Amino acid sequence: MRIVVALGGNALLRRGEPMTVEAQRANLRAAATALATLYRGNELVITHGNGPQIGLLASHDVAGPLDVLGAESEGMIGYMLEQELRNAVPSPAPIATLLTMVEVDGDDPNFANPTKFIGPVYSRSQAQRLAAKKGWLMKEDGTVWRRVVASPSPKRIFEIQPIEWLLEKGAVVIAAGGGGIPIVSKPGGGWRGVEAVIDKDLCSELLARTLDADVLLLATDVDAAYADWGTPSARAIRRANPTWLRGKSFPAGSMGPKIAAACTFAETTGKRAVIGGLGNLGALLHGTAGTTVTQQID
Amino acid sequence: MRIVVALGGNALLRRGEPMTVEAQRANLRAAATALATLYRGNELVITHGNGPQIGLLASHDVAGPLDVLGAESEGMIGYMLEQELRNAVPSPAPIATLLTMVEVDGDDPNFANPTKFIGPVYSRSQAQRLAAKKGWLMKEDGTVWRRVVASPSPKRIFEIQPIEWLLEKGAVVIAAGGGGIPIVSKPGGGWRGVEAVIDKDLCSELLARTLDADVLLLATDVDAAYADWGTPSARAIRRANPTWLRGKSFPAGSMGPKIAAACTFAETTGKRAVIGGLGNLGALLHGTAGTTVTQQID
Repeated sequence: MRIVVALGGNALLRRGEPMTVEAQRANLRAAATALATLYRGNELVITHGNGPQIGLLASHDVAGPLDVLGAESEGMIGYMLEQELRNAVPSPAPIATLLTMVEVDGDDPNFANPTKFIGPVYSRSQAQRLAAKKGWLMKEDGTVWRRVVASPSPKRIFEIQPIEWLLEKGAVVIAAGGGGIPIVSKPGGGWRGVEAVIDKDLCSELLARTLDADVLLLATDVDAAYADWGTPSARAIRRANPTWLRGKSFPAGSMGPKIAAACTFAETTGKRAVIGGLGNLGALLHGTAGTTVTQQID
Repeated sequence: MRIVVALGGNALLRRGEPMTVEAQRANLRAAATALATLYRGNELVITHGNGPQIGLLASHDVAGPLDVLGAESEGMIGYMLEQELRNAVPSPAPIATLLTMVEVDGDDPNFANPTKFIGPVYSRSQAQRLAAKKGWLMKEDGTVWRRVVASPSPKRIFEIQPIEWLLEKGAVVIAAGGGGIPIVSKPGGGWRGVEAVIDKDLCSELLARTLDADVLLLATDVDAAYADWGTPSARAIRRANPTWLRGKSFPAGSMGPKIAAACTFAETTGKRAVIGGLGNLGALLHGTAGTTVTQQID
């Protein structure tokens, strides 16, 4: 089976955890152990988020534009993940981590109305100071403030052919880290990076669809998507179809993009997407845990 | 022909140039234009240095260990190089940039006597301050001071199989950026990164040898290796064999590793290595410019 697994940023760095190399390594080690259960008999592509990391990279003195920082985060997280995968399984398949560039539309409406939270949380006064000093757009995220950047829709993955070749040969591939590096076409021809962060779940869906994957697993730090989340009647959704899910509402910054990605994948491919806990990947794959999204509910 | 081209750090960021994204992009654009002349009919692997970049990354507030920063620099430089390659040629072959981990010996003598200069240049007093504040080892590099880190010999490239597969399929591959991410085996099994920067020329030689490349091109900002460099009798070396070259002396921080890499490649493979100007890659390939190192001088 060909599987695309998306690792949530929250699964790589828990909320409130300091962004140290040690903390990320410990979480990536747990992720690698979970991922290793999927190796046997499957083709595996792993994607990952970069929200906390790119935000912190952007806050240091010599920070560059977000496309370059996205590339740095693909290097940083991809390396640690590849290493922990190698350590998790004695004699694994060859592993390859590819930098991934993703075309977006320069006229995407999200450039005018940014929605993607990145980096640390701040108080209102800290947020006001940073907005003035660095020109960042800051918005409230629940009870705290964070930087917000544009998050245009992913249109096309430049490295799809090399990824396909590596999968055919039996390599485990890490790609599209942080949703990929956002690229727009230049008026006179050619390409350039843009100041944006593509949503990792939407990019993982595009990747899974383009690679004709059999299943898309969206791994996070909760065990399933919940209906009526945050209310006394909250309940885990076991199976659902896109039509029903699109009638519900989910938190924009976390479960929302996962639901959107799962619905698009199920609708456009007729295959299934599963949302659930990272520690439970085998059960997600077999549909015995998490939220399975399919066109047909049996 | 299978070609490995190593791009010198000085060719990517000229001495004294500010390490801005714009300056690096302009240099990478020139490099990409030069590299594009090698596409037709050849299998191409491109490596690059990271000396200035990793040094600057290491100096910011949230810097991690050098293995992680090396991975970040592979992301940053690899992305910009891949993009400029795409822009340099209208319809190029697929391009893939791979994170690259390289095994080194934890007992390498260079850990006890570091020799690799990285990052900006400082005055003596600045250097003393940094040594005290950050615990960095600082050494004189000509008339200025720079940080020095361990540079163990590269032993094995973990991703060699995926690189080989991609070349066979016709992709242009960018790999082993900054000499690769240095990795040692852990006593109980498994792997971990170490605080070091592998020499990019020596790693490129190992890569070329392991891939059974036909030629190794070491591109830099001078047109050839010079005998008696810095003296009135300085003269460009056109062709030489390893035995003769090993009897000469070359600057340790720049031409020295290129000569060492070229000699090892010529000796162990019987093929040729060429050292010369980045703008002249086609002529280097055809042996009409630069310094050609071969076992046999015709």
